Amino acid sequence: MAEPLPIGVLGLGRMGQIHARHLAALPEARLVAVASRRPEIAHEIASQYNARPYVHYDDFFADRELRAVVIASATHEHAAHIKAAATAGMAIFCEKPIALRLEDTDEVLRAVTRAGVLLQVGFMRRFDPAFVEAKRRIESGDIGHPLTFKAVSRDPQLPTAEAEESLVRGNLFIDLGVHDFDMARWLMGQEICQVQAVGGALVYRRLAETGGVDNGLINMVFADGSLGSVELSRNAAYGYDVRTEVLGSEGALIIGNLQQTPLSVLTRAGVTHDVFPWFPERFAEAYLAEIKHFVRCVQAGEFPTPNGDDDRAALQIALAATESLKKGEPVNIAAV
Amino acid sequence: MAEPLPIGVLGLGRMGQIHARHLAALPEARLVAVASRRPEIAHEIASQYNARPYVHYDDFFADRELRAVVIASATHEHAAHIKAAATAGMAIFCEKPIALRLEDTDEVLRAVTRAGVLLQVGFMRRFDPAFVEAKRRIESGDIGHPLTFKAVSRDPQLPTAEAEESLVRGNLFIDLGVHDFDMARWLMGQEICQVQAVGGALVYRRLAETGGVDNGLINMVFADGSLGSVELSRNAAYGYDVRTEVLGSEGALIIGNLQQTPLSVLTRAGVTHDVFPWFPERFAEAYLAEIKHFVRCVQAGEFPTPNGDDDRAALQIALAATESLKKGEPVNIAAV
Amino acid sequence: MAEPLPIGVLGLGRMGQIHARHLAALPEARLVAVASRRPEIAHEIASQYNARPYVHYDDFFADRELRAVVIASATHEHAAHIKAAATAGMAIFCEKPIALRLEDTDEVLRAVTRAGVLLQVGFMRRFDPAFVEAKRRIESGDIGHPLTFKAVSRDPQLPTAEAEESLVRGNLFIDLGVHDFDMARWLMGQEICQVQAVGGALVYRRLAETGGVDNGLINMVFADGSLGSVELSRNAAYGYDVRTEVLGSEGALIIGNLQQTPLSVLTRAGVTHDVFPWFPERFAEAYLAEIKHFVRCVQAGEFPTPNGDDDRAALQIALAATESLKKGEPVNIAAV
Amino acid sequence: MAEPLPIGVLGLGRMGQIHARHLAALPEARLVAVASRRPEIAHEIASQYNARPYVHYDDFFADRELRAVVIASATHEHAAHIKAAATAGMAIFCEKPIALRLEDTDEVLRAVTRAGVLLQVGFMRRFDPAFVEAKRRIESGDIGHPLTFKAVSRDPQLPTAEAEESLVRGNLFIDLGVHDFDMARWLMGQEICQVQAVGGALVYRRLAETGGVDNGLINMVFADGSLGSVELSRNAAYGYDVRTEVLGSEGALIIGNLQQTPLSVLTRAGVTHDVFPWFPERFAEAYLAEIKHFVRCVQAGEFPTPNGDDDRAALQIALAATESLKKGEPVNIAAV
Repeated sequence: MAEPLPIGVLGLGRMGQIHARHLAALPEARLVAVASRRPEIAHEIASQYNARPYVHYDDFFADRELRAVVIASATHEHAAHIKAAATAGMAIFCEKPIALRLEDTDEVLRAVTRAGVLLQVGFMRRFDPAFVEAKRRIESGDIGHPLTFKAVSRDPQLPTAEAEESLVRGNLFIDLGVHDFDMARWLMGQEICQVQAVGGALVYRRLAETGGVDNGLINMVFADGSLGSVELSRNAAYGYDVRTEVLGSEGALIIGNLQQTPLSVLTRAGVTHDVFPWFPERFAEAYLAEIKHFVRCVQAGEFPTPNGDDDRAALQIALAATESLKKGEPVNIAAV
Repeated sequence: MAEPLPIGVLGLGRMGQIHARHLAALPEARLVAVASRRPEIAHEIASQYNARPYVHYDDFFADRELRAVVIASATHEHAAHIKAAATAGMAIFCEKPIALRLEDTDEVLRAVTRAGVLLQVGFMRRFDPAFVEAKRRIESGDIGHPLTFKAVSRDPQLPTAEAEESLVRGNLFIDLGVHDFDMARWLMGQEICQVQAVGGALVYRRLAETGGVDNGLINMVFADGSLGSVELSRNAAYGYDVRTEVLGSEGALIIGNLQQTPLSVLTRAGVTHDVFPWFPERFAEAYLAEIKHFVRCVQAGEFPTPNGDDDRAALQIALAATESLKKGEPVNIAAV
Repeated sequence: MAEPLPIGVLGLGRMGQIHARHLAALPEARLVAVASRRPEIAHEIASQYNARPYVHYDDFFADRELRAVVIASATHEHAAHIKAAATAGMAIFCEKPIALRLEDTDEVLRAVTRAGVLLQVGFMRRFDPAFVEAKRRIESGDIGHPLTFKAVSRDPQLPTAEAEESLVRGNLFIDLGVHDFDMARWLMGQEICQVQAVGGALVYRRLAETGGVDNGLINMVFADGSLGSVELSRNAAYGYDVRTEVLGSEGALIIGNLQQTPLSVLTRAGVTHDVFPWFPERFAEAYLAEIKHFVRCVQAGEFPTPNGDDDRAALQIALAATESLKKGEPVNIAAV
Repeated sequence: MAEPLPIGVLGLGRMGQIHARHLAALPEARLVAVASRRPEIAHEIASQYNARPYVHYDDFFADRELRAVVIASATHEHAAHIKAAATAGMAIFCEKPIALRLEDTDEVLRAVTRAGVLLQVGFMRRFDPAFVEAKRRIESGDIGHPLTFKAVSRDPQLPTAEAEESLVRGNLFIDLGVHDFDMARWLMGQEICQVQAVGGALVYRRLAETGGVDNGLINMVFADGSLGSVELSRNAAYGYDVRTEVLGSEGALIIGNLQQTPLSVLTRAGVTHDVFPWFPERFAEAYLAEIKHFVRCVQAGEFPTPNGDDDRAALQIALAATESLKKGEPVNIAAV
């Protein structure tokens, strides 16, 4: 076996901590450094995994032992951190999206190319066993020619003032939608060329002030004329609900995920089972598998996917959908 | 109990035969006449239920004993048959849609109003136990305020020359879609004000010549801003697939219907169960219940629903979706 | 088509009324008479279906038009009624069991044989689409050689004084169990040669006074050494729960029946669906199909199954299980 | 946080490797040694986790740094290894069963008590989220008073000569059954007092020569009169099938586990999904959770459960079932 890859995690929010835990448990990697601007978090996580803590990100990027980095900082910082990592010659795993504007993404991708470093983006669904098997089934022709893509992504957040505040700063089509847009491209094996969107601030009314929405529906047309539909929602009171379908000429695939625990409770009120509460539980295996994939690619010197182009493509669809929603008409992806 | 209602069935295709069978078995009704232009069918069904056969529709409408009629003729004949029945003073149950153009529907509805006869339209889903219970749950507030409607209607037809020929004459959004548009209005308790559609002739390529589609996706905006999404397809190779959802502020409802027989077969190939093959099996109970409702309303002299206005509203949405598809832009329902 | 079969229903409790409704709706049959010792019931049902009411059973059996009879009287009266019908030369459909003692069953079967009339017994599960398909799958070898039979039959009754009173008079292994014992024989294609049972009066404590039980478990050994397990219960608070499995050398079949309506309600409390409330709902199609089968056999002069021997075999197993429970040891079927 | 617990794994078969991987990833523990009589395995696993390899078990038990050990050697070696570990003063986690005879188990438990070391036994189902939640539901009274326990454990092995050879040396009721017997005691909160078993060598015919069986059914009576049923099988061709139910006076719990991946494939052949292939996949979370529990108990100096008494109780039931099968009559647990 190759020497374990010396790697660090930058940003220790929910996702950063998940990545740190996975890397610490991976024989192929060695978690040597973690970085957070909050000292107590940096030190706690570092001591937990016997890694070096950094509070200043410059120091982190100056760590000569680091050959690779997982960037899990705030979205608006991704661009700067990727560029710093590229300059330092580190292989990069970055949470999606790289940036919120295509120009910024392009600039980052040029820097990555110039530096000649590897870049993988955190579309973890590509590593979920159900999605992996769906892809395999489609490619083996089990459902014939893919005709229609269909996805539902509903976040379990409930209307609180704090949640609303956070949503006001976000964009439903980017925050939630890029995962579905990536799946659409990946499973259908096609680029999307047009979108049309409707949406509304149906629960978090304050979003309306800034043109934001908490629920949205996007119809899509693929390059070969096949069709797609994505529903995005911030308010599934009952849990985290991600479902994806592909209808083909000879059959269909349905990826559901409603039940977490295989326990049914039967009483006079009916038969009841639980639901996945949130994405870390639903995609636990996928998060581990994507990091394994990244480490293996770095060790082997191979370009990983999903990569920067995949991130850019998903962002472009999300921006087109945002524009369609604003203008009230279909938008061609190429026009964004 | 009241005297059984003397009723007749006009048109003895698949739906007409279903209605005849149900009426013959209903204590509240007496099937006294059936009509078909194909004499052998008319006589066979009539002798089966001990009813009078008619080959000429004029004779049927002249039958003085008939107090009510079920019209299950071809769609393009509905208007003329409703008008004839209205003139004859019969209570009318008509398969959807009344007509394919709003002007025609309006003319028919005026004739019905003038004649003062009762009219029910065949949106049988309103009588399916799952939809009925969904409606009840929404009204009792179990899922809070309804925010998003979602429906899939996939017909199980497979690409044959004959099937293609029949589809060329039809319109996916009307043939299949009106059921979903009716459910959208009924379950959400709201009118739809705007639609945007995409579609394609993805399997039956010949449809493209006449602008027809075999797959379509329609996004909808309701009067209060809530949202809807409908997927229509002619090519579910695996069976008949009708699913409907409502997402509310406090929960959601999902009406699925994939499994017909509660049998699972477990082999090395996995766990397999069947699917409803086609609408008569899926909606068997609903077809019976809608006819019972009609007979009861006629006996009690009450106006039944779904009525002509419901038919008109669903047609209008289907036409707006058709126009949206053609123009490639959103269409306001009121503009159709 | 043959002349419709003139048939009558004797006993108008729950099952008798179900049979009357089905027969009235069947083109192949003509419901000409119904009989109940309660005059108001006899007259109500008779007028509903335009049949002759009988209050005295002797008069019913003297009705010269009747060619066949459905016997749905109380279990302890079955024997007398079958003998009367046989004497009158009527074809007989009788609810299970024919009698509660093997001697009585044997005497009845001899009378039927002597009279040369046809006899079908009401094991309706043999006509349920899921069980029919399971049988077909086994015979076509889809699960290899059948090795283990498994069944659960749980009645939805809840502890009330009235329910307890009725249970005191019954025998769980006969009342409920004969259906499972019949399925065991039918699906496995084997006779049962030994049983061992445990049981208890776990909810309806008064049953204990007379040795009765409300829950029981029976292990079975088939003639070829394959195995079976049956669970019987009077107290499924959540609904009617009938499940059946066959494990074979190459796969397995599972017949479940928990969900009645294809509606899921998703709230913070989880995902909830309903359950079949009781047997008339679960086996609605089967009750119709068994009567159709009977009418067709009578019209064609063919011996129907399940027949008297099937009834006797299931009763014998139930009695053996009862004895095993009492003695606390395995009992050979042949020894009963 | 306490100093990580220095721990070793003895026996590096399938289960030993699972435990080693989990311990290496656990911040609360430090995997310092592994032992296997096969040098290449010992060295490979040791180098993977940066632990010391041992090929001679005596050397392993002489390792002064080790404060705890996971024993995953062959069943017949458990007793000797537990005693060696106890003598060395190590806290002990041992795979079930401790031994195959009650005398041996008793001797081991006395040694453990004398040494004053902690002992946990590998009944991992007690840590599976579904079983944990089921236990919680029962204790919170959600299904009333527990009345009937029901379990199915089917191994996915298929008839090969090698499989048969291994089965000849085993005992279905011990190898597979102890998990179900432990669940029966744990979920019902009751001791079992009587069992009656049937079984057969239905697939692996050679088992019959030594009195072995590949399929067995055990009925059980609990101390308070409640009932239980366990089905054990070596030949579920379709996968690993573990299901457990508790019927209570007010409702029921069903733990199913048939589907591994939330993907359904819909084709003309029906709707198909997969099944868990084998126990490591089904109980992945449980294996991790049980080791965490053990480490925590050792760190805190608390007695863990399931413990030696739980192992002894499950073994006793398995032996009673074995005797019942041989004698063909019910066996009281106390008499074994």
